[in-house]
Amino acid sequence: MTRVYGMSASGNCHKVRMVLEALALPYDWTETDTTKGDTRTPSFLALNPNGQVPAVQLDDGTVLAESNAIIFYLAEGSDLIPAQRLERARMLQWMFFEQYSHEPYIAVARALRKFHRDPKSQRAVIESKMAGGYRALDVMEDRLAKSAFFAGDAFSIADVALYAYTHVADEGGFELERFPAVQAWLARVKAQPRHVDMR
Amino acid sequence: MTRVYGMSASGNCHKVRMVLEALALPYDWTETDTTKGDTRTPSFLALNPNGQVPAVQLDDGTVLAESNAIIFYLAEGSDLIPAQRLERARMLQWMFFEQYSHEPYIAVARALRKFHRDPKSQRAVIESKMAGGYRALDVMEDRLAKSAFFAGDAFSIADVALYAYTHVADEGGFELERFPAVQAWLARVKAQPRHVDMR
Repeated sequence: MTRVYGMSASGNCHKVRMVLEALALPYDWTETDTTKGDTRTPSFLALNPNGQVPAVQLDDGTVLAESNAIIFYLAEGSDLIPAQRLERARMLQWMFFEQYSHEPYIAVARALRKFHRDPKSQRAVIESKMAGGYRALDVMEDRLAKSAFFAGDAFSIADVALYAYTHVADEGGFELERFPAVQAWLARVKAQPRHVDMR
Repeated sequence: MTRVYGMSASGNCHKVRMVLEALALPYDWTETDTTKGDTRTPSFLALNPNGQVPAVQLDDGTVLAESNAIIFYLAEGSDLIPAQRLERARMLQWMFFEQYSHEPYIAVARALRKFHRDPKSQRAVIESKMAGGYRALDVMEDRLAKSAFFAGDAFSIADVALYAYTHVADEGGFELERFPAVQAWLARVKAQPRHVDMR
């Protein structure tokens, strides 16, 4: 059985749960709280030298890290990854977009507002994340005005990757009301079989 | 023929050149200088609404963005992508690591030192990037002490992704002398058939 080291309140970790649930795969979840230093212990660093969750340990002991690589591994051979080469690349395009142009703004603003012990002290940092977060939402709105899902016509792990922090973007101070196509897409993701939300 | 919109001095763009050259694929390169606003014109934004290079346009007009998704697309079916599922996921793990934990430190420090019109004014920002860059190099050193290449025993596009900015990390002020396994790996990548460096 796949063992997941994850923090339930983390969108990156939630992606792994979404895919495991969508594919009805059995798993053990080991709650790993980054705010308590759980990812900085020698035993955790032996699993993932980059000191981040999520990390998964497979039956043979192999450890995989990086949320988007983990969900690619779990979903290979399922219909969560497009069979067509160009759509597969398009899916990856949006997954790299998520990690580079979305997560560092929207997830970081949310983490500071929600988990920092003194969010007011972080006001300037949070403020510095808003423009980038809205830019990412603009780019998503542009895509979703033309396509039902990110890779194409079908739900894929690119949607999982972008759903994770977008569906809680309000906790980062982002107003999703401005993005009708994003909102319609959130509803389409929510309607997928065995869908789970973070809250 | 694949049309590449890229800036030759950008590591992200250089990845695309490395893979096209390695696979001996024909391409047209349209030099696109981000420092001159070439990625902010209406015509470029129509190609890539995220306003970044590299972007490639395929024969049928389709545009793909995100360096690591582009090189995945170009390399599919070649021996630059492992045939085995776990190694393929491992390759992607390091490609996501590159975009999240490596590029935002090493590439950004290099860009500010090399391309900013007044690098001295950026000293504090550059300084703030050093610890993260060295942390990424530590994680790479750990991996390369155990494995010849990032995905496993064979050269893959994960090595291309990490080579791009690592081989010019000195331009960002990073001392690669501290990382013997990284240096040996750089030499292994350089020894690949049809290898091209950025300088």
